[in-house]
Amino acid sequence: MKEGKNYELCEVKAGPENEKIFIGKTLGLTGCEVSVNYFKPGKGYGFVHSHKRNEEVYIILKGKGVFYIDGKEFDVHEGNIIKVLPNAKRALSAKADSELSFLCIQADQNSLVQSTREDGIISENKASWM
Amino acid sequence: MKEGKNYELCEVKAGPENEKIFIGKTLGLTGCEVSVNYFKPGKGYGFVHSHKRNEEVYIILKGKGVFYIDGKEFDVHEGNIIKVLPNAKRALSAKADSELSFLCIQADQNSLVQSTREDGIISENKASWM
Repeated sequence: MKEGKNYELCEVKAGPENEKIFIGKTLGLTGCEVSVNYFKPGKGYGFVHSHKRNEEVYIILKGKGVFYIDGKEFDVHEGNIIKVLPNAKRALSAKADSELSFLCIQADQNSLVQSTREDGIISENKASWM
Repeated sequence: MKEGKNYELCEVKAGPENEKIFIGKTLGLTGCEVSVNYFKPGKGYGFVHSHKRNEEVYIILKGKGVFYIDGKEFDVHEGNIIKVLPNAKRALSAKADSELSFLCIQADQNSLVQSTREDGIISENKASWM
């Protein structure tokens, strides 16, 4: 891991031997938790779960999968991003004929105060390419 | 966009004509904001910026880039995940010889109360593959 006063960096690769990697503790995240995930074809979560406080965002990076939410199932693929409210009962699996790589972000529901232009401050500093 | 009572789904693909796509408004996110980003070789942010409240997490999905933080620069590549504290002055560019795809998550610093096992509730429901 590489770190400076105001940042920390790690390197993560999920795969068949390492299906789910949480990075919150590694990087000392305080606003969200992020997991990097990989399922072999036909493999998926072994259980359905919901959350007490946290809204989740699933980002499908590669492959095809099946999303279960509250008793319904639908297909997902690369480029799909799914917001799931805390009390939804959810699970996810790779399709039988495809691997599935995805990220899952969890953050406290209604905790975001402002973002992007409201929260950003443009600096007069310049990077080498500017 | 597809939606149910407890979820919303969208499809996003960043590319040369659509370098930065914010999905918070599209999906009605309340815990974090997420952008999907793409830079052509040699292309990058045109300015350095910091944040008032939000911690950011950059996830490098593909390619190679240069990260600027507080006057220093270092290389990043697929698999790198970088936490950046609000007051850090930051920017990111694709390397001259590589495209760069990445995600950026912003969430209110210190807003995460609990996560994963502390926040999850296992359900007795079963998905079709269980």
